[in-house]
Parts: sequence; structure tokens; C-alpha cells
Amino acid sequence: MRLGLILDMDGVLYRGNRPVRGAGEVINLLKDEGIPFILLTNNSTKTPRMYRKKLLDMGMDVPEELIVTSGVAARLYMEKHMEPGKVFVIGGRGLHEEMEGLDWGTGSVEEARTGGWKEVEYVVVGLDPGLTYEKLKYGALAIRNGAAFIGTNPDTTYPAEEGLYPGTGAIIAALRASTGREPLIIGKPNEPAYEVAREKLDGVDEVWMVGDRLDTDIAFAKRFGMKAVMVLTGVSTLEEVENDPIKPDLILPSVKELSGYIRVRLEETR
Amino acid sequence: MRLGLILDMDGVLYRGNRPVRGAGEVINLLKDEGIPFILLTNNSTKTPRMYRKKLLDMGMDVPEELIVTSGVAARLYMEKHMEPGKVFVIGGRGLHEEMEGLDWGTGSVEEARTGGWKEVEYVVVGLDPGLTYEKLKYGALAIRNGAAFIGTNPDTTYPAEEGLYPGTGAIIAALRASTGREPLIIGKPNEPAYEVAREKLDGVDEVWMVGDRLDTDIAFAKRFGMKAVMVLTGVSTLEEVENDPIKPDLILPSVKELSGYIRVRLEETR
Repeated sequence: MRLGLILDMDGVLYRGNRPVRGAGEVINLLKDEGIPFILLTNNSTKTPRMYRKKLLDMGMDVPEELIVTSGVAARLYMEKHMEPGKVFVIGGRGLHEEMEGLDWGTGSVEEARTGGWKEVEYVVVGLDPGLTYEKLKYGALAIRNGAAFIGTNPDTTYPAEEGLYPGTGAIIAALRASTGREPLIIGKPNEPAYEVAREKLDGVDEVWMVGDRLDTDIAFAKRFGMKAVMVLTGVSTLEEVENDPIKPDLILPSVKELSGYIRVRLEETR
Repeated sequence: MRLGLILDMDGVLYRGNRPVRGAGEVINLLKDEGIPFILLTNNSTKTPRMYRKKLLDMGMDVPEELIVTSGVAARLYMEKHMEPGKVFVIGGRGLHEEMEGLDWGTGSVEEARTGGWKEVEYVVVGLDPGLTYEKLKYGALAIRNGAAFIGTNPDTTYPAEEGLYPGTGAIIAALRASTGREPLIIGKPNEPAYEVAREKLDGVDEVWMVGDRLDTDIAFAKRFGMKAVMVLTGVSTLEEVENDPIKPDLILPSVKELSGYIRVRLEETR
């Protein structure tokens, strides 16, 4: 059995701009022991390059290709399963870069104003700090006109310093209400994210999913037969775990304790 | 039995900028016979003054106080039932004017940026052609902070020339998703709109509700014991009526045929 790990980032490796104690140690252990791993986040606003820099600033050196945002996952999944066609993006910089990387053509709001929404074949929606009514309008018109409706992630909220901001799921809810259509959602706990993650973890046959959220990370792990490792440094609390039907396989105070478990696992199989 | 009428506007008296044949005649008949009536629309983006001008341009002379938008209804309902408190408006010009008319103070996005959302006691949401992510964000933060969540109308779409645009209900869906809270909705087919309409029709004990939409106008009429008069010049079709559990009491090709029915009713009771 060859071990591989999927780690969520925010709430697991860091909180805001501060690393969680032991996070750098875990990353180094995985690299030193040659254990395949990826960092998988439902956030699509940032690029892997931006995450690499953020992690480096906190002392963690992770190659860009091991950082999988829901924007990256959307690009890889669309490349593999869908025919090229014009994409209308409602999202942040990270999602725009990935969709431009598809090289299928992306439609702008300016083009949409002169009827360009009629040529759109994919409406791809992530958290968009620059959301406007016009973007919702042309997104809705294109979806009603037959364009595929794709969401990067289901999260209805986004934790920020002031409180919980509306997440991608809130923008999806507006488009769902106005079109009556259900989107394909890429990110955790959904199948597209799993497929993309598994391809990145080539040759692995035992996956540990390490995360802080019951509804995304832990649900994702249980749904696809991964070992669900929960850390208590993020969104979900121990009380919530006790009251939720979704149960992690392992609950750790923080990612710090994960290193010990990995070492035990390595010794067992040596 | 003293007769009074509630008429929807768009799809009943006009379509876009063109009057429906016979609309002017009905308005004149109601005025000449002294039959109490109001015009009641779920739209909150325009002001009664703007509607009065629009109707005048099509040859219909209706006093502003008989034109009840969902913004007007929100103001009247809030004035009667709620304690004064700062209002954060997500909506068009019509809703902004009504909420300013309350004189309870309205919070701006600029104030919200420096923490002003913490003082907001009412988040009032209508169709907002100037919607931004920031407005959704401060609306959601205020609602999570305990502010009342009020929607002007439930319509998830808004018919326009290019097709169906996202309506107030789509913006409400985004806030509902991100806060987990249900709004009080003012407009048809809900109770607040009925209460406001009945107060305007003082002394009336038989109300005919004339509209073009099954889900708002006709549902509204049936729910509150009004006579449901449906016209086929708007959104809902005869086929939809046949397939819908909600049945109008009377189906007319257009408002033109309404004058005859009103005359018969007047002669019966003379």
C-alpha cells in the first residue's frame, strides 16, 4: 500500500497569514520521505503562484504543480471531459488565469453587452470580489441560452477577519434561482475534485485527506474512501464533530500531531 | 358590497412602452364611476413619480398615491410595524427613495467599509442593477449581526427585451445562502402587500385583483379571498393556466374586456 496525502491549506497549514505550529515539519517530512502529496483548496480567487509565495513566506517550500485550487481543478477537468468553447468567467484572478490557460477563448462583459453572451458555451463561477449585476445578468442569459453552468466550489460562506463573507455558493444560488438550472460543482466534496486529485497522486493506493471542515474536507474523504483526518485549527469544532453524522477517522488537535502518525505508518510498512 | 380593484401594471396596462388596447378606457371608467383602485407592482426599481409619467405618456392619468410599488409597500409596512433603525438598501432608485422617505437613516457602502454595517438594523433588498459583491458582503454581515432581512418581492426573474434577467429573488437567494436566514418578503403574493393594498382601498368589501402572472398576481388573489382576474397579455399563457393548480376566477384576453365586466357588475348592484 503506497501512501499519499491531500491537505487542505487554510485552517490546516495556516490561519490567515500565520502558519499552524508543525505545518512546516509535516511538509518537510512528506518531501524527505518521498510521500506523494498535494495541497487542495476550494478557493479559486488566487493562483498557485500566489499560494506558493504565501507558503514560502511562512517557511513552507511547495512546488506550484502540487498546489491545486478549485480553479486549477476546473481547468484540468474541463480539458479532459469537455469540448472547447467560449468561457464566461464570474470569478477572481485565479479563476480568470486558469480559464485563459484553457485557451478556449473567454468572453468579457464588454463583449456580452453587444450580444457576445450568445456565443458563450461555459459559464464558470467562483468567488468574485468584483461581482456586478451585469455579470449575473449575462451569466444567466448565457445559461438560459444553453451554456453549461459550472461552479468551482459549493461553499456558501468565506471566513474573513470581519466575519463570514458570501462565498461561491451564494453567487451560484443567485444564478440557480434565476435560471432554474443546477451547476456542475468542481471542488470538495465533489467527484471532479477527487478525479483531479487522484491523477496528481499517481501510483498511490491509500489516501489520507487532511482538512478542517466537516462539510467539505471530511465529507469528501468519506465519500471517496479516503482516510478522513480532521484537525481542529480551522472552521469545524470538536462539538460540531460530535453532533454531525459525518465522522472523521482521526481527529487531531492540529497538523503538528500528523507527523507522528505518518512516521508510525512508515515504520509499519517498512 | 362596495367594489374595488387592484391592477398589476406591466403585462396588464402596458407591455414595455406600449399600452395594451383598452387600458386607458378601464382607468377612465374606474375614475368616472368613482370605483376605488390602486396599481400594485412588485417592481421596486422605479418611483411612483416615474410610473405616473410613463402612464401619462401612454394616455393614462393616475395620481401618484394610487401607484404602489413594492418599495412603497415596504416603506408603509415598515412604518406601521417596525421600530426605527438604520436601513442598508440593496436596490434601485425607487427603493432608495422610499427607504430615505422613512427617515430612519440609510447606511452607505462607504460607511459599511469602516464598520458601519454593525449599526444596520434592516437590510432591505430589491432588484439592484448596481449590485456589487461589496453590497452582498455588507448585507450578509449585517444580517448575521442581527439585522432584519427584508425582500421587496420574490420574483427570481425580470422580463427584459434580451430575455429573462435575474430578479430580486436571485439576489435574495444569494443572501439566504450566505446567511442561512429567511427574509420577510413584502410583494405579491405575500401578506404585507395585501395589508398595504387593503388600507389604500378603504371602505371596499369586494376586491378584484387583475394580473398576468399566476405565481404572483393570481396566487395573491386566491390567498386573500380576492376575485382573481387573469389577462393573457403578459407572462403566463392559457396553457400554463390549464396546467397549474392555481385557477383564476376569470380569464380575459386582455384588460379591454374588463370594462364590460365592470359595467355589468355596476348595473347588478345599482
